[in-house]
Amino acid sequence: MTISKIERVIAFIQQEISNKKLIAGTRLMSVRQLAQHLNYSVSTVVEAYARLVAEGLIEARTGSGYYVSTKMQVIHNIEKPVQYEREVDPLWISRQSLEAKSDVIKAGCGWLPVEWMPELSLRRALKQVAKAEASLLVDYPIPHGHLGLRQWIARKNKKYDLELSVSQILMTDSATQAIDLLFRKLLKAGDVILVDDPCYFNFLALSQVHDLQVISIPFTEHGPSVQHFQQALLYQPKIYLTNSGIHNPTGATLSIAHAYQIAKLAEQANLIIIEDDIFAEFEQIPAPRYSSLMGFERVIQIGSFSKTVTAAIRCGYIISHEKFIDECIDLKIATNFSGGHLNAEIIYQALLDSSYKKHLDNLHKKLLKTMQFTIQSLAKLGIEPVIIPKAGIFLWCQLPKQMNASVLSKLCLKQGVILAPGNSFSQSPDAGQFMRFNVAQCGYKKVFDVLESAMEEMKNIQ
Amino acid sequence: MTISKIERVIAFIQQEISNKKLIAGTRLMSVRQLAQHLNYSVSTVVEAYARLVAEGLIEARTGSGYYVSTKMQVIHNIEKPVQYEREVDPLWISRQSLEAKSDVIKAGCGWLPVEWMPELSLRRALKQVAKAEASLLVDYPIPHGHLGLRQWIARKNKKYDLELSVSQILMTDSATQAIDLLFRKLLKAGDVILVDDPCYFNFLALSQVHDLQVISIPFTEHGPSVQHFQQALLYQPKIYLTNSGIHNPTGATLSIAHAYQIAKLAEQANLIIIEDDIFAEFEQIPAPRYSSLMGFERVIQIGSFSKTVTAAIRCGYIISHEKFIDECIDLKIATNFSGGHLNAEIIYQALLDSSYKKHLDNLHKKLLKTMQFTIQSLAKLGIEPVIIPKAGIFLWCQLPKQMNASVLSKLCLKQGVILAPGNSFSQSPDAGQFMRFNVAQCGYKKVFDVLESAMEEMKNIQ
Repeated sequence: MTISKIERVIAFIQQEISNKKLIAGTRLMSVRQLAQHLNYSVSTVVEAYARLVAEGLIEARTGSGYYVSTKMQVIHNIEKPVQYEREVDPLWISRQSLEAKSDVIKAGCGWLPVEWMPELSLRRALKQVAKAEASLLVDYPIPHGHLGLRQWIARKNKKYDLELSVSQILMTDSATQAIDLLFRKLLKAGDVILVDDPCYFNFLALSQVHDLQVISIPFTEHGPSVQHFQQALLYQPKIYLTNSGIHNPTGATLSIAHAYQIAKLAEQANLIIIEDDIFAEFEQIPAPRYSSLMGFERVIQIGSFSKTVTAAIRCGYIISHEKFIDECIDLKIATNFSGGHLNAEIIYQALLDSSYKKHLDNLHKKLLKTMQFTIQSLAKLGIEPVIIPKAGIFLWCQLPKQMNASVLSKLCLKQGVILAPGNSFSQSPDAGQFMRFNVAQCGYKKVFDVLESAMEEMKNIQ
Repeated sequence: MTISKIERVIAFIQQEISNKKLIAGTRLMSVRQLAQHLNYSVSTVVEAYARLVAEGLIEARTGSGYYVSTKMQVIHNIEKPVQYEREVDPLWISRQSLEAKSDVIKAGCGWLPVEWMPELSLRRALKQVAKAEASLLVDYPIPHGHLGLRQWIARKNKKYDLELSVSQILMTDSATQAIDLLFRKLLKAGDVILVDDPCYFNFLALSQVHDLQVISIPFTEHGPSVQHFQQALLYQPKIYLTNSGIHNPTGATLSIAHAYQIAKLAEQANLIIIEDDIFAEFEQIPAPRYSSLMGFERVIQIGSFSKTVTAAIRCGYIISHEKFIDECIDLKIATNFSGGHLNAEIIYQALLDSSYKKHLDNLHKKLLKTMQFTIQSLAKLGIEPVIIPKAGIFLWCQLPKQMNASVLSKLCLKQGVILAPGNSFSQSPDAGQFMRFNVAQCGYKKVFDVLESAMEEMKNIQ
């Protein structure tokens, strides 16, 4: 009994229905008749009919056989079109990118193209997990979450000279959920937090949800401006939220000297640093982590596997000291109950699969190449990177004078290219002169053609 | 190249290391040598070595071969023991149950034993999904979430005479996350909500997180007390949060007459009803839904698949009107970014698999049987159900006079049986006289032996 035969039976019945050869209420051939007719085994047809029943297309009447459903499914499948007209705000890029049709180029989104992801590792992981013990498939995990994955995270942190116990790690449903949980735990409405300027737009969106006061610290090639950071301490911020490793959106990496200055200031001001380590796997030479310098008394690290393993499984984590992690568990249960054990096991198996390392090595090479290509292609249009990143997917660029990123993004969206205008990443008045590009999504000539014609159009309007 | 051979090679190396035949820094046999030694193919050994590298047990040195890792992993695996001493609060049962060792009987928890879950459907689903198209394996879904699963949910609701469009459904990471999102969207700190007395303890825990004022409405055999509900409207509650179908913890089902009275009151008072449909699949005859009576203008339904498909995958949903669902998406992205596409696909395939319907039919029969057994066994100890449920896993019982549920639960926990004391479900002063049993977890004689001896011990103390 193979899947493909079952699918052929299903397709056969579906066609008969859509051809109106079988109309609502008609009796189907019996299992035995159809098996004979198609020269398939009875068990194949039984399984196909069962699936058609589950899908609501046919119904079983006891003692009488199978009938085309009279309560035929008129499920409205129309999804909302991409919202061209939405104003640019911190959620603009996410919603445009997530709602885009498959022929739209997501030059501004924050993730890799499908064909750059470790498909093979995932397929092998799924096959492996299909044989796992039953409790892993169906039961809740312990509140800390998947042990193997926490061990993997602890091992990964040895790269940064960090010795972790697995009780210092709490699995969450995503990195975003991890930050949300930390905000809830550590902050109340009206509290002041520091972020980078520019910063990942969802940091701003999440701060809005929590009704926080946000102070943005200009981000330089080597890290946040120490002078601005020091000045901001006057407002008694509770938290500094930043990326470790590769910075989003600038692609910059923190220097050790900068990290040292910021660490000292954070200690003096009794400030907690949350470092989002989500781009760690893109690094070839690890940049300094605040956690490496300061340990986990004052630094909380969060991360996930969505960038280099899969974005289709929800799985993130929080690293802190044991007592704090234990306190977070009550909040996690109250607001989200549990984490997915099976989710975590699939990620874990994919990470262990030999194909994953090859995937990463390949990815690093491809990213360097496409980074070069994107820089060169943008240069021809007068768009210049502010920083040349050492690694990662992001390129933060300055547009030619008089070009507004929001207007340009809206024009390009109409031509099927989603960009990431600077206004989404920053509240500063000159943010509209900047644009984040995802070099992994910029391998298409169309991106630059559309950009060029939109820039031409803008010049004519002016 | 089969998995079991790879695993045998891994086990062989692990044993050599733990036997100290191979110590840190020792060179391993080359791939070729070991393949010859074990009479396995070279590719098998390559894969095994790659996995050992991924696990950090061995390391590859370029041009020189494989060595036992010198940075040997001392990952501390000690997990916290069950917290016997924690006071009974709304999170007591969850934490005890989630942290319990495998030999502890979870007679009070809210889910089925592992062996009662549709293991086969899950295994088949995972194999099926391993062959799915790449984007499903690695990419973010559209913000509304998995289309097939939303269609399935829309079809399911036809049972309750509801015609749904898929745009009325938003996939979330869990039912708990769904309620959390709705609380955030609809309420602010200090707002009044109505819950049942008793109610699912996490409703209370989540209300605490949101800093809400909770009014508990006594829950009768047929639904919430209409008189108390009407009186509570004086406090201008914004939301009534309840279970549809089978009530947690009482096991009661709503009568249509009760539903009608409450619906009218909710309309008069401009109150939103959130109905948690999480136990729907346990029903054989569907109880009335508020949504069936009132549609989705004022009723929001939430649910998940954790009770009858798997608790190891996070997947829930919200049903409302299209406009509200669209508004929820911004909040979902800000606080959790995306939903798991692969998660949803695994659930979807498991639901479609023919074995799932058989599993449900079996489950209903087994639950009726074990419900009888539990009622009889408890009767011998003088513990009487308040309501005889028509379906489901819960039995809400009154203890003999002078017995306190918290004290009894703590005594039984020491003997390896986790109970669910009434105090977790209710703030009312007599809540300590009640106990929730999960009949699916009460198939062991030990439950009743431990209960009996603990009750004996309590009598002697008094």
